[in-house]
Amino acid sequence: MDVRFINPFLDATENVLRTMAFVEPKVGKPYLKKDNAAKGDISGIIGLTGDLRGSLGLSFSEACIVRIVSNMLGESLTGIDNDVKDAVGEITNMISGVARKKLESEGFSITAAIPTVVAGKSHSIVHVLGGPSIIIPFEIEEGPFVVDVCLGNGPT
Amino acid sequence: MDVRFINPFLDATENVLRTMAFVEPKVGKPYLKKDNAAKGDISGIIGLTGDLRGSLGLSFSEACIVRIVSNMLGESLTGIDNDVKDAVGEITNMISGVARKKLESEGFSITAAIPTVVAGKSHSIVHVLGGPSIIIPFEIEEGPFVVDVCLGNGPT
Repeated sequence: MDVRFINPFLDATENVLRTMAFVEPKVGKPYLKKDNAAKGDISGIIGLTGDLRGSLGLSFSEACIVRIVSNMLGESLTGIDNDVKDAVGEITNMISGVARKKLESEGFSITAAIPTVVAGKSHSIVHVLGGPSIIIPFEIEEGPFVVDVCLGNGPT
Repeated sequence: MDVRFINPFLDATENVLRTMAFVEPKVGKPYLKKDNAAKGDISGIIGLTGDLRGSLGLSFSEACIVRIVSNMLGESLTGIDNDVKDAVGEITNMISGVARKKLESEGFSITAAIPTVVAGKSHSIVHVLGGPSIIIPFEIEEGPFVVDVCLGNGPT
């Protein structure tokens, strides 16, 4: 996967979470996903088509997403409920939108599908057909989350 | 959601599983998804863009997918391993491909993203932004699986 495709998603994640949830996630070093080790309690997934084809996944630990959505809504949530699921869909959609704008400015026209949210203790996400994906690890005080980008040139 | 969009996915699911895995799934009555009740142990999700925009999700119980992939590979599997994850991605991709061809013949041009596979005991899938989705329930002897179609006209 082309590393040029990583920064737009990294920047978009920071921007969206800063603007929407007033958190400043610490970003770790992006790495090539070798196994299915990145697990989460709730994930947002969105398919991307156009000049590049692939998908974007965000996986959050429960403590982490509860803090983020509590900040977004201005109320103190205690677990993963429907508000949290809706918010994960919105966050995924917004991050894909901001990243697509950045990729467009580099000459790649991309269309997004609708986000899908997966909830379930400690599930893992695999991109089986699109080649290797890159994981961008983030952390806030309450816990980690990962952004999983699988994107390549390719026929649609 | 337009009910015309359901049959292509229903037919594609039957065709692909019959051809690839020699199973004849019993199909139940499709229904509008009202909550997140459809749970699975492994799911394949693929985003769709073009004249219609949405996503297709397939969620299998473990016993059900183990039987299907054992048939596909001609060996006796015992649980969800990497072969099963790969196969779920392939099945999802193929069903979306066959359904897209059928939709094309009705005048809708659709592009698919790459499939994402989610593994984890009893997770649920939600389409949060695309409006209601339709569940097509299937069953084989070993257990149930569902096809979850969320598709609408809409700006990309």
